[in-house]
Amino acid sequence: MPLNHLNQQDHRYLASLVAPERCSTGESILNTHSRDQSRHPAVRPEVVIWPETKEEIAAILKYADEKRLPVTAWGAGSSLEGNPIPLCGGIVLSFARMNRIVNIRESDFQIDVQPGVIYKEMNHELRHTGLFFPPDPGAGATIGGMIANNASGTRTVRYGSTKDYVQRLTVVLAGGEIIDIGNRASKSSSGLDLLHLFVGSEGMLGVVTEATLRLAGIPEEFAWAVATFPSVEAASRAVLDTIRSGIDPAALELLAPECVELINRARNFGLICSPSLFIELHGPTRQRLADDLRIVEEICRNEACAEFRPGLDRAERDRFVEARHALGEMIAQAHTGQKRVVIDVAVPISTYPEMIAFARQEAQKAASVTAYTFGHAGDGNIHMVVGAQGDDVQAWHAIEGLNERVVAKALHLGGTATGEHGVGIGKMKFMPAEHGASLEWMRKIKQLFDPNGILNPGKMFPSQR
Amino acid sequence: MPLNHLNQQDHRYLASLVAPERCSTGESILNTHSRDQSRHPAVRPEVVIWPETKEEIAAILKYADEKRLPVTAWGAGSSLEGNPIPLCGGIVLSFARMNRIVNIRESDFQIDVQPGVIYKEMNHELRHTGLFFPPDPGAGATIGGMIANNASGTRTVRYGSTKDYVQRLTVVLAGGEIIDIGNRASKSSSGLDLLHLFVGSEGMLGVVTEATLRLAGIPEEFAWAVATFPSVEAASRAVLDTIRSGIDPAALELLAPECVELINRARNFGLICSPSLFIELHGPTRQRLADDLRIVEEICRNEACAEFRPGLDRAERDRFVEARHALGEMIAQAHTGQKRVVIDVAVPISTYPEMIAFARQEAQKAASVTAYTFGHAGDGNIHMVVGAQGDDVQAWHAIEGLNERVVAKALHLGGTATGEHGVGIGKMKFMPAEHGASLEWMRKIKQLFDPNGILNPGKMFPSQR
Repeated sequence: MPLNHLNQQDHRYLASLVAPERCSTGESILNTHSRDQSRHPAVRPEVVIWPETKEEIAAILKYADEKRLPVTAWGAGSSLEGNPIPLCGGIVLSFARMNRIVNIRESDFQIDVQPGVIYKEMNHELRHTGLFFPPDPGAGATIGGMIANNASGTRTVRYGSTKDYVQRLTVVLAGGEIIDIGNRASKSSSGLDLLHLFVGSEGMLGVVTEATLRLAGIPEEFAWAVATFPSVEAASRAVLDTIRSGIDPAALELLAPECVELINRARNFGLICSPSLFIELHGPTRQRLADDLRIVEEICRNEACAEFRPGLDRAERDRFVEARHALGEMIAQAHTGQKRVVIDVAVPISTYPEMIAFARQEAQKAASVTAYTFGHAGDGNIHMVVGAQGDDVQAWHAIEGLNERVVAKALHLGGTATGEHGVGIGKMKFMPAEHGASLEWMRKIKQLFDPNGILNPGKMFPSQR
Repeated sequence: MPLNHLNQQDHRYLASLVAPERCSTGESILNTHSRDQSRHPAVRPEVVIWPETKEEIAAILKYADEKRLPVTAWGAGSSLEGNPIPLCGGIVLSFARMNRIVNIRESDFQIDVQPGVIYKEMNHELRHTGLFFPPDPGAGATIGGMIANNASGTRTVRYGSTKDYVQRLTVVLAGGEIIDIGNRASKSSSGLDLLHLFVGSEGMLGVVTEATLRLAGIPEEFAWAVATFPSVEAASRAVLDTIRSGIDPAALELLAPECVELINRARNFGLICSPSLFIELHGPTRQRLADDLRIVEEICRNEACAEFRPGLDRAERDRFVEARHALGEMIAQAHTGQKRVVIDVAVPISTYPEMIAFARQEAQKAASVTAYTFGHAGDGNIHMVVGAQGDDVQAWHAIEGLNERVVAKALHLGGTATGEHGVGIGKMKFMPAEHGASLEWMRKIKQLFDPNGILNPGKMFPSQR
């Protein structure tokens, strides 16, 4: 049965479920919830609702399920593959008012939060406890969005992804049923693992209304270094050797020269404009980190590293990390008028040099296309921001082909079509190639939890079977 | 539709699928595959088959599904909750001949293995690579069994459980379909997470025929210490403080005095017969570990630790770890003629002292019952081996009640009914209390993957709804 658009009765009923100021059909509100940070075309919802309790969400989902109305959960809209764009219109559930820290369980290294909490603000609140939530996608992401997307980032090489930090979830299912999943013990072998099924499900199996997250101890000391190399391949070999050495870096980021140039221009760092690695180390003492830095320097020098600039200064490290996180914005400002795609693949670490070389060679072949290569190298994760003028049909054709060839190469190397940005709209077409016969089982699980297909419809599964 | 027993035609057909020596209905063979290491009553299968390929398994499962014949996968039979006992008879698939290391992917920190590989033998094979597979349940478990059970053990406090090390699986589903799940990249946000759904599913969703596992680097140096305390509660408070301190122990094991006494007797360690912690540390240099040991000692001394015996000697540490792993066997030998249950719960770490105190008080109330308390304290995991003469009805009634009260307390504290032994038969009755409404969704997933209920039937879900 196809999904419906909202009629007047639907609008009246939904408006009756929440306070008047928490339900809107205003133009600017609908526009704000029509697109994420990707280039995927905007689609407006028909209504935006700001629930405050799981019971309100249950009532909305129960009604929507009966009436076959699309429901898409909305965090910060910071995703990069069109993940929360309400493709079929319908209802957007914004979590902007469910953004409370419910309980900091300091002695258990845990926190209970509502999904609308921004992870950076949560970490700010936590700073006096000596604890933090490590996954670090960079943007102003909400915890709900990070769970939906199994978000990761610069610190994942040491600390893991969001999936490694979710202990317990409260979820409202499509029919309005509320279930609790998981427990607060640090380990369990009890029953089927529903927890990981919901993490990374992009809002397509249910709507998370509360989460208990594991936290990690804030390290006593930070150290970092920027190393510059004669080639991107040399830098990526140094990545491989660092991982092999047993050093446990807290960040291991690759920047191709075009990225270093942008960062220099925007932040005046005076870095050599060569392929560079940013390495961060966490540890209990400065001495320990200084020892580790010496090992990392030796590895880098073996790959003909020209400059190795180490630091034990927290403030300078913060400036550099901020600049790294702002890179996407810097690229946007350098090419106003362009549209962009972020290619995001991950491969087994031994194939990282090969993957990087392939992606850059392919990018060079595409005329009128700008390409910036960087990535969470320690995870074998490559980002390439490719852009062209929005109306340059030929360039966009080339970008499409480039993305396809890079993904095909990543899959051939045993990797994944999407390292951390999720499937959304942009990666949907690669799902059959990546998952083969198991994609059909993902689809069956989707049908089990959401038989009428109301939750974030049109995503993950290409409609041509 | 109920499951069937095998008729002559079934026996003939199944025997035709494999070489004659790989299919047996011999008495002793059936007996060997009728029980694990728990006290749950033996149930014999009707045939044992030793497949060698996934295609053979697919053919067996296809036939079994059509004929509604029970199929239970069998690793080493080392589980503790009756997990692989073929409750409905039928076919046991033994993985004893699918025990090949397929590929050591040293530069990716990965290994491809068949499920019949014994994890200790795998680690022995890996010793020259500088890599190892950390989960460490102690017994002669197979990788397949560890995946089915999401096994963990002494090293989990630092290194995590089996679920944290599974990258990719090949699985044969109930109908005979073969699917591949996951990939070789260290991270991914692609599609629904089927991988974690199969890990810990106790052979009830499908049969794993190959796995790619992550490996960790063998640490350069080992240090350890045994600390003795005036009370189990003081020892468990030292556990809590050690975890809070940011020290990252590789093992943090609690032994109540009755366990220390057994170990002394069997291995002549000359430990003080008091509640004790065994602490293991891994690190790159001896200096680093000596520093950490000093911090741990200070924490222990604050809890009135009477003796702190540190060591940097690998051989003595190996002797101690061996003794810890042999504790179950020592208890059995000390009480021949008894039957035993291993209570296994896990709780949030802040409640560990309370949980330990409760369990020991309750155990003292049970007459004619012996109780040994120990556990993976760093994970908030408690084991209590309780035993009585097999025919002592009153004692077994008391043990039943003790187990129920300990599990109820663990759930009340936010923990889990089964820290690492799985559900099997023994923990089935606690599933409704632990999982509430989400248990029904686990059941629906089971029905989705195995609509005829042929895979390891009678487990996990209590039949009274």
